[in-house]
Amino acid sequence: MSKGFIISFEGPDGAGKTTVLEKLLPQLKKKVKADFIVTREPGGVLIAERIREVILDVSHANMDAKTELLLYMAARRQHYIEKVLPAVNQGKVVLIDRFIDSSVAYQGAGRGLDKEIISQLNAFATDNRRPDLTLYFDLPSEIGLGRIQKNKDREVNRLDLETLDMHQRVRQGYLELAQAEPDRITTLDASLSAEAVTENALEAIMKQISKSRSLWI
Amino acid sequence: MSKGFIISFEGPDGAGKTTVLEKLLPQLKKKVKADFIVTREPGGVLIAERIREVILDVSHANMDAKTELLLYMAARRQHYIEKVLPAVNQGKVVLIDRFIDSSVAYQGAGRGLDKEIISQLNAFATDNRRPDLTLYFDLPSEIGLGRIQKNKDREVNRLDLETLDMHQRVRQGYLELAQAEPDRITTLDASLSAEAVTENALEAIMKQISKSRSLWI
Repeated sequence: MSKGFIISFEGPDGAGKTTVLEKLLPQLKKKVKADFIVTREPGGVLIAERIREVILDVSHANMDAKTELLLYMAARRQHYIEKVLPAVNQGKVVLIDRFIDSSVAYQGAGRGLDKEIISQLNAFATDNRRPDLTLYFDLPSEIGLGRIQKNKDREVNRLDLETLDMHQRVRQGYLELAQAEPDRITTLDASLSAEAVTENALEAIMKQISKSRSLWI
Repeated sequence: MSKGFIISFEGPDGAGKTTVLEKLLPQLKKKVKADFIVTREPGGVLIAERIREVILDVSHANMDAKTELLLYMAARRQHYIEKVLPAVNQGKVVLIDRFIDSSVAYQGAGRGLDKEIISQLNAFATDNRRPDLTLYFDLPSEIGLGRIQKNKDREVNRLDLETLDMHQRVRQGYLELAQAEPDRITTLDASLSAEAVTENALEAIMKQISKSRSLWI
């Protein structure tokens, strides 16, 4: 039996992934007898954080889409091998803010790169490991962008500067992924209150864990 | 007719690529009626130089081989699209210190990653553009490493710290490439004097240019 469990959180910035993750964790710990780690992409380990800086630097406006994709993949690889895989091998539940689907949605649907190549690179970077469950936080792009702009504490990064049109293509990309892989990806209505989204997220997680890891609950 | 001409310089550090490039350029300019640019990988443009810092940082000893490969590819893409391609489109001769073959030799033969995937990534990063000529500076690994260690002005990087065994596998990888693509790759005996290697390099370049771009000479 393969150990551990990977749950990825996907969707646009401003969809409330981080807030919901924080609310969710204590409730999840009560229900599931496992150790948890919470991490994020790009970043999560030293080398990947260095790569993150290069990706998000606002002065890198002329970064080519293929460069961007390859940098995300490099950060993914290092984070996966150094942090995610060891945790999975120890039987932990890994909650990860952004993972393989972000590349398909942003660099594929958003920037127009070939989705087949992106899938191959994802498989290369993670040795074919995919999340056991993905929560997709769905939100109309106008609302997501509006929330980001209102949040004064948040540092603007290179991807915030993209057009509404780009963000709408990204959403379309996520919706297509969710439709193609309904067993793995659960779509959450992220326009609801953080409490309601947290409740729905918890329900989706418990359902998936009980399907595959009934020993834990 | 496709414009421009790309000549890549390949081989281990310590083989004299940079020295020969410097000696070669004024002689080449006398013989070939074209504009020249000299550049290097990883680096050559701002974003790629930032990536270079991440790759070569000696504190990144735990960098995974796949991470390293993906970072080189990201640097390659940005350098290619921002510097090499525009020069080629203007009909220039581009002299480049390291290019696609370094990944096959170092990350493929050296680190044991799948050479087929590396070739696909090279094609992705350069939109299938390959060098018109590659000069491979061949040198027994002991001599190359000895030259590096004697050069006190040179800052030690992460790849200098590899074992002799790794450097020998890299050499084997280069020799196999040269054997597989004799029309593109010319092997130079880099154990000769810099003057002799420069002369041999010049001869190989003139031969290849005269084959494909006779208008220039």
